[in-house]
Amino acid sequence: MTTSLPPLRINAQRLWERLMTLARIGATPKGGVARLALTELDRQGREQVLQWARELGCTVRTDAIGNLFMRRAGTDDSLPAVATGSHIDTQPTGGKFDGNYGVLAGLEVLHTLRDAGLSTRAPLEVCVWTNEEGSRFVPVMMGSGVYAGAFSLDHALAATDTAGISVREALQAIGQAGPAPASVADGAPRFGAYFEAHIEQGPVLEDAGIVIGAVTAALGQRWYDVTIEGMEAHAGPTPMPLRRDALRPAAALIERVNAIAMAEQPHGRGTVGQVDVFPNSRNVIPGRVRMTVDFRHTNDAGLDRMDAALRAAVAELQQPGVTITLEPVVYFPPQPFDPELVELVRAGARRLGEAPLDVVSGAGHDAVYVARTAPTAMIFVPCRDGISHNEIEDARPEHLALGADVLLHAMLARAGVEAP
Amino acid sequence: MTTSLPPLRINAQRLWERLMTLARIGATPKGGVARLALTELDRQGREQVLQWARELGCTVRTDAIGNLFMRRAGTDDSLPAVATGSHIDTQPTGGKFDGNYGVLAGLEVLHTLRDAGLSTRAPLEVCVWTNEEGSRFVPVMMGSGVYAGAFSLDHALAATDTAGISVREALQAIGQAGPAPASVADGAPRFGAYFEAHIEQGPVLEDAGIVIGAVTAALGQRWYDVTIEGMEAHAGPTPMPLRRDALRPAAALIERVNAIAMAEQPHGRGTVGQVDVFPNSRNVIPGRVRMTVDFRHTNDAGLDRMDAALRAAVAELQQPGVTITLEPVVYFPPQPFDPELVELVRAGARRLGEAPLDVVSGAGHDAVYVARTAPTAMIFVPCRDGISHNEIEDARPEHLALGADVLLHAMLARAGVEAP
Repeated sequence: MTTSLPPLRINAQRLWERLMTLARIGATPKGGVARLALTELDRQGREQVLQWARELGCTVRTDAIGNLFMRRAGTDDSLPAVATGSHIDTQPTGGKFDGNYGVLAGLEVLHTLRDAGLSTRAPLEVCVWTNEEGSRFVPVMMGSGVYAGAFSLDHALAATDTAGISVREALQAIGQAGPAPASVADGAPRFGAYFEAHIEQGPVLEDAGIVIGAVTAALGQRWYDVTIEGMEAHAGPTPMPLRRDALRPAAALIERVNAIAMAEQPHGRGTVGQVDVFPNSRNVIPGRVRMTVDFRHTNDAGLDRMDAALRAAVAELQQPGVTITLEPVVYFPPQPFDPELVELVRAGARRLGEAPLDVVSGAGHDAVYVARTAPTAMIFVPCRDGISHNEIEDARPEHLALGADVLLHAMLARAGVEAP
Repeated sequence: MTTSLPPLRINAQRLWERLMTLARIGATPKGGVARLALTELDRQGREQVLQWARELGCTVRTDAIGNLFMRRAGTDDSLPAVATGSHIDTQPTGGKFDGNYGVLAGLEVLHTLRDAGLSTRAPLEVCVWTNEEGSRFVPVMMGSGVYAGAFSLDHALAATDTAGISVREALQAIGQAGPAPASVADGAPRFGAYFEAHIEQGPVLEDAGIVIGAVTAALGQRWYDVTIEGMEAHAGPTPMPLRRDALRPAAALIERVNAIAMAEQPHGRGTVGQVDVFPNSRNVIPGRVRMTVDFRHTNDAGLDRMDAALRAAVAELQQPGVTITLEPVVYFPPQPFDPELVELVRAGARRLGEAPLDVVSGAGHDAVYVARTAPTAMIFVPCRDGISHNEIEDARPEHLALGADVLLHAMLARAGVEAP
């Protein structure tokens, strides 16, 4: 029989210690972690996580792309699992918390329930998704992408790193190719719900002085390549009216990209991250500029408005002797999260005396793919200065603990807790 | 006794053939020339030029920086020489005409006078200035710079190439260190006048459909390095208002640089040639941008206005969290040419039935340094599409011939021609 939720807290010290323990596998001199997907270090990290799971009595399922599912049975084990998790692979100069926190917060939830002698009606599962970072193998978010059918298992297994080693070979080399089907379409079980706790990787929570972000959606993305062709010429002998300077429209377009995003607040984002000028010489008028545009928005209507405004800007900036070419290169759809689950996150925060803040996820996460298959939500906690994918990535132990507390209560609320 | 000038013409075919002959020394597969300063190829080029000069009965003076002076005596040989010339070193992927044209047009003037049996009252000299291009050794315009005292002989001799070879060593290796003093301050003779014929290296004459440019001045230059420091952050998770994007003020500054130059027409020029974005990744907000600014103007008052406007723009674009630093790195003063000599160029063109166009030199030339020591003017002829410092640099034989004709008449007018 389901009762009211107990005022349960996870063990903050244990969570922190395990984060530090896992961070020693692949630790870098600057305090970060370099544990690329499907390397020997990744295998060691997985073994450490699995050891903690086995100590909790979890059963473990490994699928064909190497995703791990650590399961704590429910009193009605036929129910779809209430799942959580993230990834433990890192960037080459990554930090201790990105991904690792979501996995260890999940294990901490299970540990806390065991310590409290509590069972849930639905089973609980903690996932480790393979190769979320995409640093060694593309596509990124590979394990969750295969799971959700974003691309095929064969496509993922055939991907190779710069040394020519395939995902298939790397999985076999570290013994992480499991027997379970990897894709929901091939029979991998769907979750009853999926929560993912993650450091924000952005500055919003810190700026607002809020600890718990209830993530309502992941932004959709449209990426473009822009090429501007003019004519290179000596800066000295070429009067202004006779120039075919490729950089002038590039500068105007950079300002437009920002203006377009500012017109789509609060969640529209526009970034020119890469600019390559040719020949890039002090006294030569640039003959060619290549630049990128990255637009993000919570919904397709917004992305479409941004796309139309960008095309209008490009058309307007065309001029005799200078040609601007716009090529869309990536479209990633917006992904709203499940309103009921988002409300469970907010409610969990309030129950713990914390005012949550609705936020969006600007970056990709495994949860964004899983959301295509099951009700999903995410919990963000602050990271210092919004810095991630960096060895100086940092987060406060009490914030990480509070995020895991919220995860605990949201999962319990969804799975149903049985009185001891 | 000075008489009215004869309707003399240089030998266009001989000039063209010699240009092609000289261009074979260091010829590149793409039709250009790679004959860097003080290399064995440079020595071969100098020998070819000197051979032609000796055939004309010229005496030759070589100074301590390797400048060559090929002299045809005047009937009053005590007068200061009326000189012309340029350089025969090239860029690594240079063309056939830059510099070489000025030297061979000068020799062609002497040859034409010999063929016509004419003497001049003042002696004539044709100069080959060492290392104008600066591709192998810095500073550029080295030989004329030492001559005019822009920097010392010792400074120039000590300059080294990327292999560590000094100018002093390179001069000795090819036997081009002469006994004559290199600097006017050390006793090198001043000219009575100096003319330099050169391809325009810009698009103005071609655009105007004019063959003879009477160069009234060389633009002064102010160069700057600009560094913009913001904070790099993920493009996805960072909302627009919380960004410290270094590229946005960079884009605004690029537009300002162009606007500042447009406000100083017809001769103000402003160029951002180099932009380096860090980390220059598609989905990372730029944390740092380095860029260059190149301002040119006919006079210091104009350069000062541009400098003040740039500083105002930088001050205006400063914002919390983003710092813009402006560092002046080069100042090169404007150099007006001698009005009487410029008028001789115009008059020479008109005498040949050509309407001259007053133009300015945006690039550096040996004449700009020589002008510090003697009345100086330049003659520009068109080059195709304004392209220079490139293997496809091209010019029309009839334009080159006409430029040499104008040079002939300007030199004769200045030196005084004696009846045969």
